[in-house]
Amino acid sequence: MELLEQYICKNGAVKEGDVLKVDSFLNHQMDVGLFAEMGKEWKRLFADAPINKILTVEASGIGIACVAAQEFGVPVVFAKKAQSINIDGEVYASKVQSFTHRRVYDVIVSKRFLTPDDHILIIDDFLANGCAVNGLIDIIEESGATLEGVGIAIEKGFQEGGKLLRERGVRLESLAIVDAMDAATGGLTFRH
Amino acid sequence: MELLEQYICKNGAVKEGDVLKVDSFLNHQMDVGLFAEMGKEWKRLFADAPINKILTVEASGIGIACVAAQEFGVPVVFAKKAQSINIDGEVYASKVQSFTHRRVYDVIVSKRFLTPDDHILIIDDFLANGCAVNGLIDIIEESGATLEGVGIAIEKGFQEGGKLLRERGVRLESLAIVDAMDAATGGLTFRH
Repeated sequence: MELLEQYICKNGAVKEGDVLKVDSFLNHQMDVGLFAEMGKEWKRLFADAPINKILTVEASGIGIACVAAQEFGVPVVFAKKAQSINIDGEVYASKVQSFTHRRVYDVIVSKRFLTPDDHILIIDDFLANGCAVNGLIDIIEESGATLEGVGIAIEKGFQEGGKLLRERGVRLESLAIVDAMDAATGGLTFRH
Repeated sequence: MELLEQYICKNGAVKEGDVLKVDSFLNHQMDVGLFAEMGKEWKRLFADAPINKILTVEASGIGIACVAAQEFGVPVVFAKKAQSINIDGEVYASKVQSFTHRRVYDVIVSKRFLTPDDHILIIDDFLANGCAVNGLIDIIEESGATLEGVGIAIEKGFQEGGKLLRERGVRLESLAIVDAMDAATGGLTFRH
């Protein structure tokens, strides 16, 4: 998606340790006009899929998912990162290893919000090693719901998450795929 | 706001310990159509305020803030609950006591995204003791930005957060104010 690549080139920064900083528009400060365009693009790409719910994970996926959900006219469910006293005991759970925070955490979704009748689109901001998306897919499979696809804003094409998902037959639509980046020069190579 | 009160009466549940469960439409599963109507109502209520940015806190405020921000045509910044390696060292920070999770956590905002030129609307899902909003106000004051007001979905009017903010002269617009609730009967009394 050309608009997203333009945002990344203009406002992103490549840091040591394979970190792509896009916190001025994607995951700390959030440009909701861009999110609306991303939502339209996913709606175009998944136009034939009978999606009735979007699933994401807190925190940085939530804003993108909610704006995109308006294009689909469906509700969003976000997986929570820790047990809360406001969650009923009946939850689906999976473990996720965070690249950013370098730790493992539990993600949970109330069983009331995922059923065998649901057709789910997963939305998230980043795909690197794929751990967050795999955790969400585990939860969807446990619930008996149908995974229709995965929509990612930025895929790090030099990490294996996207490749492994495509090999499994998951319908994956990443709006920008970064195949290489160089912290010394700030250079970025996109897959087209 | 009548539509929000209808959602609360139809889909909410009163639990022991002053817990109002609204996770089927507000803060776990999220009804983005409702959020759009809430955004329109805040836009009407704050029509005269020169708001150029919305500030919220992860996680459950993010979806509401992003959909509402589309009505205002402004970006959203969300305060993060823990230090991340993707955040630069230069942050504003405050401590918040969570009613839901019964613990104290740090919230941080990058100094790049709050400046003395900013006119801020705070958006959050719940107002009870006001700790989260007060933490965000501390951060706004530290940055030199101007607080234009606070938009809350559901205020627990029987806790003191809203009263104290109004006494301080903060412009507070809660779309539903629950003055009393009874876990035994499920009864709810709204302020009008």
